[in-house]
Amino acid sequence: MQRDRACDEVTRPPMTTHTATAFAPASVGNVGVGFDILGHALAGPGDTVTARRIDAREVRVDAIRGTVTDLPRDVERNTAARAVAGLHRALDLPFGIALEIDKGIALGSGMGGSAASASAALVAANALLDAPLAIDALYPFALDGESAASGGRHGDNIGPQLLGGLVLATADRLVKVPVPRRLWCALVHPHCVVETRRAREALRGAYAIGDFVPQSANLALVLAGCYRDDLDLIRAGLSDVLVEPRRAPLVPGFAAVKQAALDAGALGASISGAGPSVFGWFDGEAAARAALAPMQAAFAAAGLDSDPVVGPVDAPCARVVSRA
Amino acid sequence: MQRDRACDEVTRPPMTTHTATAFAPASVGNVGVGFDILGHALAGPGDTVTARRIDAREVRVDAIRGTVTDLPRDVERNTAARAVAGLHRALDLPFGIALEIDKGIALGSGMGGSAASASAALVAANALLDAPLAIDALYPFALDGESAASGGRHGDNIGPQLLGGLVLATADRLVKVPVPRRLWCALVHPHCVVETRRAREALRGAYAIGDFVPQSANLALVLAGCYRDDLDLIRAGLSDVLVEPRRAPLVPGFAAVKQAALDAGALGASISGAGPSVFGWFDGEAAARAALAPMQAAFAAAGLDSDPVVGPVDAPCARVVSRA
Repeated sequence: MQRDRACDEVTRPPMTTHTATAFAPASVGNVGVGFDILGHALAGPGDTVTARRIDAREVRVDAIRGTVTDLPRDVERNTAARAVAGLHRALDLPFGIALEIDKGIALGSGMGGSAASASAALVAANALLDAPLAIDALYPFALDGESAASGGRHGDNIGPQLLGGLVLATADRLVKVPVPRRLWCALVHPHCVVETRRAREALRGAYAIGDFVPQSANLALVLAGCYRDDLDLIRAGLSDVLVEPRRAPLVPGFAAVKQAALDAGALGASISGAGPSVFGWFDGEAAARAALAPMQAAFAAAGLDSDPVVGPVDAPCARVVSRA
Repeated sequence: MQRDRACDEVTRPPMTTHTATAFAPASVGNVGVGFDILGHALAGPGDTVTARRIDAREVRVDAIRGTVTDLPRDVERNTAARAVAGLHRALDLPFGIALEIDKGIALGSGMGGSAASASAALVAANALLDAPLAIDALYPFALDGESAASGGRHGDNIGPQLLGGLVLATADRLVKVPVPRRLWCALVHPHCVVETRRAREALRGAYAIGDFVPQSANLALVLAGCYRDDLDLIRAGLSDVLVEPRRAPLVPGFAAVKQAALDAGALGASISGAGPSVFGWFDGEAAARAALAPMQAAFAAAGLDSDPVVGPVDAPCARVVSRA
């Protein structure tokens, strides 16, 4: 827990950094009511990327290890490399950067794995710079990196990974939203895969203007509840009436898992990112922890093993874990 | 100006009130980014309704005066009477209520005129009760009343009229949003009419999920800006990319009027409610006042006379102005 660490403070290293390793946490994208624009960090799982200065003025991927190893290494198709290549080009760096990626987040889990590789890579690469950028300035490069995997530019995972906690991520801006201290998240990741592109296809087709009204009201209630430290408002708003109905069929057992979370006292529960992970927000750590078993049992009833993750909504941001 | 008056404080009168007169202000519905859910009160114009106890246990309209006189008097089709009739039924009152309506807001102006009659009527009728309800409790009756005119239940005018200032109005809840003190509104009402029903028809048809993302991001930025007292965030968000493009053709000269507001320094400008009034938000009273002339000139260039209204976004709520 680094709850009080300022994520946008970048300490200039005393001498040239040749190698830096950074960790970026998993995250809950969309948070139900903020499709493509709202997300929060999740303590526990995450991706780790080591960036190393090399003489050749290029960005390359030297290794991919961990939960996923068959990712593309091509710079434009690898989220980490594409993100760092954008930074490298923009700053016209006089050196190159080699990346080693340790995946800790399962692919297609709805926990922001693609984004985490980009976030960790940028934080690591930034630490190599003689004059590191402010964390906010990494955002456009991270967006561009993640688009290699998702096909779109949306910062609902990148934003909270870079800043920690709950973040509003628009096309060109990150806004950290205050989080009531008692808010904890319980997330269950079933052992199946929903590809982000397929999850986005489920959202094609027509909507009526009236579909947007209750969803934007819910978004506004959740934001107001966070700013007012009012869990009743959050409970009133934390319901996805726009996206969840179209994506739920992609997640086996979803309705039962969501109901298990609500029965355990969740303020609200929905699909994390593009799924299949399901998250709930709870009033306090104990309530969140107590919800994990019934949520996992509901997935088990649908024939799926699962992993639990639990932590405060105001979870720590990406950070450098070592440098040399 | 009653900036610090608590709008939900209802003082019990010392003896039976036989007649009460209440004023409800105009309002800016939608505020660009919060279609059907966000609005703010506007000092100056408004509707005034007198409610009088009568022996017959009915609600009736005795008179309609002011800017509009040809409104329906039938209880179900008159917004004020329908609202009060709902209250009357719900409380099973042992007396009836006769209403006299003084319209101060032009019909079809986009300034919440239909809602103001309902709001004023309910505040006046509430003052007749031996145990007046909290203002929040009037909301569902006001919603039902306004639906007589608009055909839908949306509280983006009712909410700010009842509570004052900027209000998030969901299907069953009002949330007052803090407003930076420097925020002033300039509104210009051109002498033409856009019927609410026609303005809603313009929004029929299909939307893509991607249409919703930038609009909800803008809504979130405006809310965050209000809670953080950050006018830059409000400026970044105060742009209607969802509804305005479809309604703008209904307002002659709209693009030029909006541009005039922006050229005068508006943080953002859009259609007020269903139009044709156009509003802008400004940093300070002087900036708002200075924008009126160029906005009116732009309407004049489109062949339309217009009336200006200017006031703080945190404008006063509906209130009882006399009782006997």
